[in-house]
Amino acid sequence: MTAHPPYLPPLMIDEIVRAALLEDLGRAGDITTAATVASHLTATATMNVRDAGIVVGLDLARAAFRLVDPALTFAALASDGDRVPAGTSIARISGPARGLLSAERVALNFLMHLSGIATTTARYADAISHTRARVCCTRKTLPGLRAVEKYAVRLGGGSNHRFGLDDAILIKDNHIAVCGGVAPAIRAAQAYAGHLVKVEVEVDGLDQMRDALREAPDAILLDNMPPDVLLEAVALNAAHWKLSADLYPTDRRRTRLEASGNVDLGTIAAIAETGVDYISTSKITMAAPTLDIGLDIGIGAD
Amino acid sequence: MTAHPPYLPPLMIDEIVRAALLEDLGRAGDITTAATVASHLTATATMNVRDAGIVVGLDLARAAFRLVDPALTFAALASDGDRVPAGTSIARISGPARGLLSAERVALNFLMHLSGIATTTARYADAISHTRARVCCTRKTLPGLRAVEKYAVRLGGGSNHRFGLDDAILIKDNHIAVCGGVAPAIRAAQAYAGHLVKVEVEVDGLDQMRDALREAPDAILLDNMPPDVLLEAVALNAAHWKLSADLYPTDRRRTRLEASGNVDLGTIAAIAETGVDYISTSKITMAAPTLDIGLDIGIGAD
Amino acid sequence: MTAHPPYLPPLMIDEIVRAALLEDLGRAGDITTAATVASHLTATATMNVRDAGIVVGLDLARAAFRLVDPALTFAALASDGDRVPAGTSIARISGPARGLLSAERVALNFLMHLSGIATTTARYADAISHTRARVCCTRKTLPGLRAVEKYAVRLGGGSNHRFGLDDAILIKDNHIAVCGGVAPAIRAAQAYAGHLVKVEVEVDGLDQMRDALREAPDAILLDNMPPDVLLEAVALNAAHWKLSADLYPTDRRRTRLEASGNVDLGTIAAIAETGVDYISTSKITMAAPTLDIGLDIGIGAD
Amino acid sequence: MTAHPPYLPPLMIDEIVRAALLEDLGRAGDITTAATVASHLTATATMNVRDAGIVVGLDLARAAFRLVDPALTFAALASDGDRVPAGTSIARISGPARGLLSAERVALNFLMHLSGIATTTARYADAISHTRARVCCTRKTLPGLRAVEKYAVRLGGGSNHRFGLDDAILIKDNHIAVCGGVAPAIRAAQAYAGHLVKVEVEVDGLDQMRDALREAPDAILLDNMPPDVLLEAVALNAAHWKLSADLYPTDRRRTRLEASGNVDLGTIAAIAETGVDYISTSKITMAAPTLDIGLDIGIGAD
Amino acid sequence: MTAHPPYLPPLMIDEIVRAALLEDLGRAGDITTAATVASHLTATATMNVRDAGIVVGLDLARAAFRLVDPALTFAALASDGDRVPAGTSIARISGPARGLLSAERVALNFLMHLSGIATTTARYADAISHTRARVCCTRKTLPGLRAVEKYAVRLGGGSNHRFGLDDAILIKDNHIAVCGGVAPAIRAAQAYAGHLVKVEVEVDGLDQMRDALREAPDAILLDNMPPDVLLEAVALNAAHWKLSADLYPTDRRRTRLEASGNVDLGTIAAIAETGVDYISTSKITMAAPTLDIGLDIGIGAD
Amino acid sequence: MTAHPPYLPPLMIDEIVRAALLEDLGRAGDITTAATVASHLTATATMNVRDAGIVVGLDLARAAFRLVDPALTFAALASDGDRVPAGTSIARISGPARGLLSAERVALNFLMHLSGIATTTARYADAISHTRARVCCTRKTLPGLRAVEKYAVRLGGGSNHRFGLDDAILIKDNHIAVCGGVAPAIRAAQAYAGHLVKVEVEVDGLDQMRDALREAPDAILLDNMPPDVLLEAVALNAAHWKLSADLYPTDRRRTRLEASGNVDLGTIAAIAETGVDYISTSKITMAAPTLDIGLDIGIGAD
Repeated sequence: MTAHPPYLPPLMIDEIVRAALLEDLGRAGDITTAATVASHLTATATMNVRDAGIVVGLDLARAAFRLVDPALTFAALASDGDRVPAGTSIARISGPARGLLSAERVALNFLMHLSGIATTTARYADAISHTRARVCCTRKTLPGLRAVEKYAVRLGGGSNHRFGLDDAILIKDNHIAVCGGVAPAIRAAQAYAGHLVKVEVEVDGLDQMRDALREAPDAILLDNMPPDVLLEAVALNAAHWKLSADLYPTDRRRTRLEASGNVDLGTIAAIAETGVDYISTSKITMAAPTLDIGLDIGIGAD
Repeated sequence: MTAHPPYLPPLMIDEIVRAALLEDLGRAGDITTAATVASHLTATATMNVRDAGIVVGLDLARAAFRLVDPALTFAALASDGDRVPAGTSIARISGPARGLLSAERVALNFLMHLSGIATTTARYADAISHTRARVCCTRKTLPGLRAVEKYAVRLGGGSNHRFGLDDAILIKDNHIAVCGGVAPAIRAAQAYAGHLVKVEVEVDGLDQMRDALREAPDAILLDNMPPDVLLEAVALNAAHWKLSADLYPTDRRRTRLEASGNVDLGTIAAIAETGVDYISTSKITMAAPTLDIGLDIGIGAD
Repeated sequence: MTAHPPYLPPLMIDEIVRAALLEDLGRAGDITTAATVASHLTATATMNVRDAGIVVGLDLARAAFRLVDPALTFAALASDGDRVPAGTSIARISGPARGLLSAERVALNFLMHLSGIATTTARYADAISHTRARVCCTRKTLPGLRAVEKYAVRLGGGSNHRFGLDDAILIKDNHIAVCGGVAPAIRAAQAYAGHLVKVEVEVDGLDQMRDALREAPDAILLDNMPPDVLLEAVALNAAHWKLSADLYPTDRRRTRLEASGNVDLGTIAAIAETGVDYISTSKITMAAPTLDIGLDIGIGAD
Repeated sequence: MTAHPPYLPPLMIDEIVRAALLEDLGRAGDITTAATVASHLTATATMNVRDAGIVVGLDLARAAFRLVDPALTFAALASDGDRVPAGTSIARISGPARGLLSAERVALNFLMHLSGIATTTARYADAISHTRARVCCTRKTLPGLRAVEKYAVRLGGGSNHRFGLDDAILIKDNHIAVCGGVAPAIRAAQAYAGHLVKVEVEVDGLDQMRDALREAPDAILLDNMPPDVLLEAVALNAAHWKLSADLYPTDRRRTRLEASGNVDLGTIAAIAETGVDYISTSKITMAAPTLDIGLDIGIGAD
Repeated sequence: MTAHPPYLPPLMIDEIVRAALLEDLGRAGDITTAATVASHLTATATMNVRDAGIVVGLDLARAAFRLVDPALTFAALASDGDRVPAGTSIARISGPARGLLSAERVALNFLMHLSGIATTTARYADAISHTRARVCCTRKTLPGLRAVEKYAVRLGGGSNHRFGLDDAILIKDNHIAVCGGVAPAIRAAQAYAGHLVKVEVEVDGLDQMRDALREAPDAILLDNMPPDVLLEAVALNAAHWKLSADLYPTDRRRTRLEASGNVDLGTIAAIAETGVDYISTSKITMAAPTLDIGLDIGIGAD
Repeated sequence: MTAHPPYLPPLMIDEIVRAALLEDLGRAGDITTAATVASHLTATATMNVRDAGIVVGLDLARAAFRLVDPALTFAALASDGDRVPAGTSIARISGPARGLLSAERVALNFLMHLSGIATTTARYADAISHTRARVCCTRKTLPGLRAVEKYAVRLGGGSNHRFGLDDAILIKDNHIAVCGGVAPAIRAAQAYAGHLVKVEVEVDGLDQMRDALREAPDAILLDNMPPDVLLEAVALNAAHWKLSADLYPTDRRRTRLEASGNVDLGTIAAIAETGVDYISTSKITMAAPTLDIGLDIGIGAD
């Protein structure tokens, strides 16, 4: 079953785009445009993707133009999540030339960054599409942009890890040390968490994993383990849940296994082929290159 | 003469760090830490750079820990702009364990992103250190992070382009088209600009550059020109200002030349050797990889 | 195992208290105090609980006094979550009289509301303490106060439901109708959710519950069912998970059952005795009466 | 003469509703709806009052739906302040199903809380409708909600006390103690207050009331006095202003008398029958139960 | 009896000063200081009043320096409201040179504007000090600065009119027209207003004033009437309240009379001598000239 | 060549107007209008300039009415920057009477203040229109209003100085002292500034000016010099740049000269006639009197 694309209502989009526009307009506004473009001029522009990739951010771009000047019309020629070849026109904007020129950069900055994330995510997702593993993001995101970066990860075919410190529990080495072991840490987390909060625990090896499994956490994070150890971890998990190989992947109640560390396009397939469920990496967020997108504008008196 | 490092007062830093922390804490705060770490525990941590690079963001990291819990002490072991080898400890933090764990990710996200920008900038700057050219940033920055990204560019040895639409005039093709030519566009800009606003114009070739020079703009942007054309542009500029080769680079009143387009670590030296003053690229901001930085924590009862 | 109390870092508390103080101070500040209390006067006050109950909000009260005047000292004589008899002094505040009088009402409003929620929650929790069920809150909270209301619920011995629309999936009748049934709805949710997001589904009867169970959701919400039907639902769940009565309650992987509807102090014990895991009700948040808390002040020249 | 209903312009409403929506949507938005409801689906819903009461908050509900998705239409079937029987439909909403489901809870939370306040206020107002007294609110309101809670009090037939520390002077025991008596305190207040600020003083008995009357404050607050003492206070006031019984209630210049303390539905009539003008209580704000209101939704392809 | 000076708690001051500093610092901060002043330098400065006047704004200045750099110390050498001769030193600041230079302009802008308002107000107040009239402000204030401008008016010896649309009722010609006369308008206002809200009505002549008096408003605004008509109005008011000339000014219950229109330093004495209570004018707020205040700085290595 | 008027996009205008409206509406909104004007009434109003002057702020006024009630229509009868005689109608507003009355004061406050600045600026500009000098503003602006005050200066025919500390470098005496002289200070600034940041230096006499000129700053600020010294400074500048008198004024690369200090309508012509380029003064911002503008309203049932 293919999941629906994620949904960010206009209210959430407007908050973030408004802040970005005000950052760019500063105190004096777009002085180049004020100096050179008369207020009665109109323009039409086409937004073109210059490299192949996955487009994300059209609603943010639409908001950028609308917020700067409500008289601008924005017609999307693609949808967020579309995989497009280089040269594809993804939107047409027309209306007052001043507003169009003033909003251009902010619209493109969002599109280029988010499409870059989605495109990179898709590259990782494609590399493991023959396995049941999914690539997923982390909390290594750029300050202020977490919601939209995670939105882009999904549209690139990735899965989302926690959105913050507050929506799931992820027990790491320091928490384990403080609690005196992996088992007491998980029990403390399960005692604390309500019935709608998941608990994941990071383990440093198979011994710790065995201890963890006895507490039935929702997920176990296997950090920096080579494929052969991951393979063993998958087997351990299957054995713990007493599932045969064909039932294992579809069982919804077993502990999920997430691998992390040393993930790149060269290593991810081997990691995925061990049978883990998720592979998390900051390479698809903070470190994703941008997708090149430009705006071609024609200006004239209406 | 070496320029001072840039200066961001605590007030500006606190605004951006506070927003990032609230984004991460969400509505319920750090539930993992609440579940597993007792309130009386203290911890000491060392922040370590895992790859060689230039450190930027120590004041933001300091603010992250202080804002989450004023009882945390943060001792910087390096300064923003320091070039450090892999394995360098750059800060020591100690105090309440809960606050330390809750602030960690936000502090690291800023440090990794900004140090990545500075380190990348330095790579470009090093590649052209035998020339008079300086690498500089653009307005292709991540929404909400422009001030700190440009701060990192400077600490990496780069120069800053405009911070927004309002602090300098940059005339591009559309503005020229609307004004009926490069000369009227520059004249419109100069008539509009006060005496503390610079005017730069982007030209598409040497003919347009000749027209531009007659209007004496502060800077000319030469977009997407091969080195041999840039060489010719530099000569044109020298001739226009009637300056001999040895006087040319130091003259403070001549038009500055900025090259852009097709800039990467393989091409930048050839571009710089043409004699241009600035080479601008978004590769050092939006597209810069992060610098890997981690936090090693020890927790115990005080 | 007793769970730790929840933890709200000062940063989160300050944001909400600052807004409340500015709401009360308006444009002219505390004009009564300005008119009648000279600036050099100091005061000492004791905060007293006038009815027995559970105290919650001491950190918010502390922030209120500190934010209005950093020269005020606030000494808590109790801790958030303490169950205290009528007449207990819970804090002593001393310092500039003007600031103390100006911050009093906001501090008390938070304390009275949150202690009221915790005290009411505890009444419900006490009524079912002989069962394994826990009372839990809903999203029926007062706008702007969700984080602190849910914090109070926990300190009253309750459990937290979702903090918002984004941290867990709760499928209701309309979502089921749109998806063409409870099973496809759960499958859509599971396909959408990452591995750190739980999925709960609301069912209208035992038939729908049977369909739901086959999809192994994390939790099932049984809305408005009489105790005898709930009893049957509990049995269905145990049978589905093939668990004997003594293993059932402790098994961490089985679907959790939540009952809601027609919950009050007279009905909750019977509901809990059916064996459900959670009983959710807005009675402990929006509808909780306040706990009466007052401030006794003595003013004098220092 | 019946007073007009109060008036909150859309600008004020939008500020508070926007914050409430963002609190609920969090970082990831409505993930249940994203997972299960396709973007092209539309829905129609009816908002129904489940208990008899007074409806307040329709403009806030309208704003909630509009802000989440401007394509939603909201048709009010009642007006704020209407007294309606159980089962009354008060609004019809139609448009994109996703937005409708995402905004529902915030709209209902405002409506249930504010209608609860108005309905409770009306109960108190009805209990004293045979007297000239009016029930009024206090500053015991929920942080962030004062403006809308006081709006609801008025629509329930109550009167408003101060909206904050800054719009009127209310001298209490501590202020009196500092000033060395009730008379100097009132004179300090009158000297401080401009001609558009009223001065009220709280007295602890009839002796203090006599002192107060000589200074002609705009109002006197009689705290925690039994009906027979209140009766005497009313007589004292009439005598001071030399008014016969039939002129007394209508005279606009005499000092107003406000009673507070020990106010509930069982005591308020006796208090009102003493002839006081206002009876203030936090029972109609912080302690008001909610009014049950639900949304019945039908979803379909357009 | 001399009224206390008004009181703005630090919380309110910080909000407005922070915004002003961020406006001035923009995105790049104080680049002149960054370029020329090394971070280890310290400085000492004296703030001097260059013209005689009344100083207002010292707490805002203190906040400006503290917010930019908490290491700066600010010692006030005068108090808000002090009348000082030209050349008076009003504050000494010392600490990090960078912060001192960056905060200087914002601190001075507040001081110069607010001291200008207080000094102008004092000029008007002095001109009528032989009468019982007081000069008062209006709602003609600069957007965002109302609270501090009204604070300055008081410290200059003036009285405050409404702080906004919401803290008192002022019925003007359009409201009267809508209500069908001055009497019904006042009655509507009195029916609407709670017991802590004053009602003032603006009248266009003595006939309308007579109608107004019968409704006993708290105050009557006499707009644009020459002194002889004002004299008649004062007599009318005395007659209505049946007060002899010596009792009239001290009676606290009679209607207050406010004159406005055509007020300047040449006319205000004649207006005041008619016996009105208040004379309102925007000349003391929007139109007040600034008071010249400068900062003399000495910088050195510590 | 006449420069275009400046351009503030609606987004920037809405931010500042929204804050001003919320300041005026407070917590209870416009209670006079609520009390006296029924919700179904409509009104039409004309905005009239009562003194001759230059109108600025029509877009802010339009925003004020629209934000309070989107149903109000605002038809501008003039444009920002128009020079109009007393009695000119500059806008017609019609729609719901309540909203019109509630927004009136904020709209007028902006218009009166900004038109006052433009009108004053024009008086200074007119006084020097026979010279090449232009009057320009400073950073002595009112906190929060810098962007719109500088917008008004331009529309009055003035030029803009820096908008903040961050968009240009202005070296003053303290910076010079720290750097050990005017030349090292300029060199430090030029080393720090990117190619789009101008450098101006303030000199205390002709000797310092000679030192400065050798470093070719973009501008020199001549503070508090009498006309004969300014004349000498202009000659020095011409000599430095080796320009004949007729070429001098039009040369775009020479250092600009700005005079300041002791500027008023009586002195500015003599200053301008020395040949300086800019004359800066805070008289046109902080100290500008307002322009009287009123609103004439007619209300009726639609």
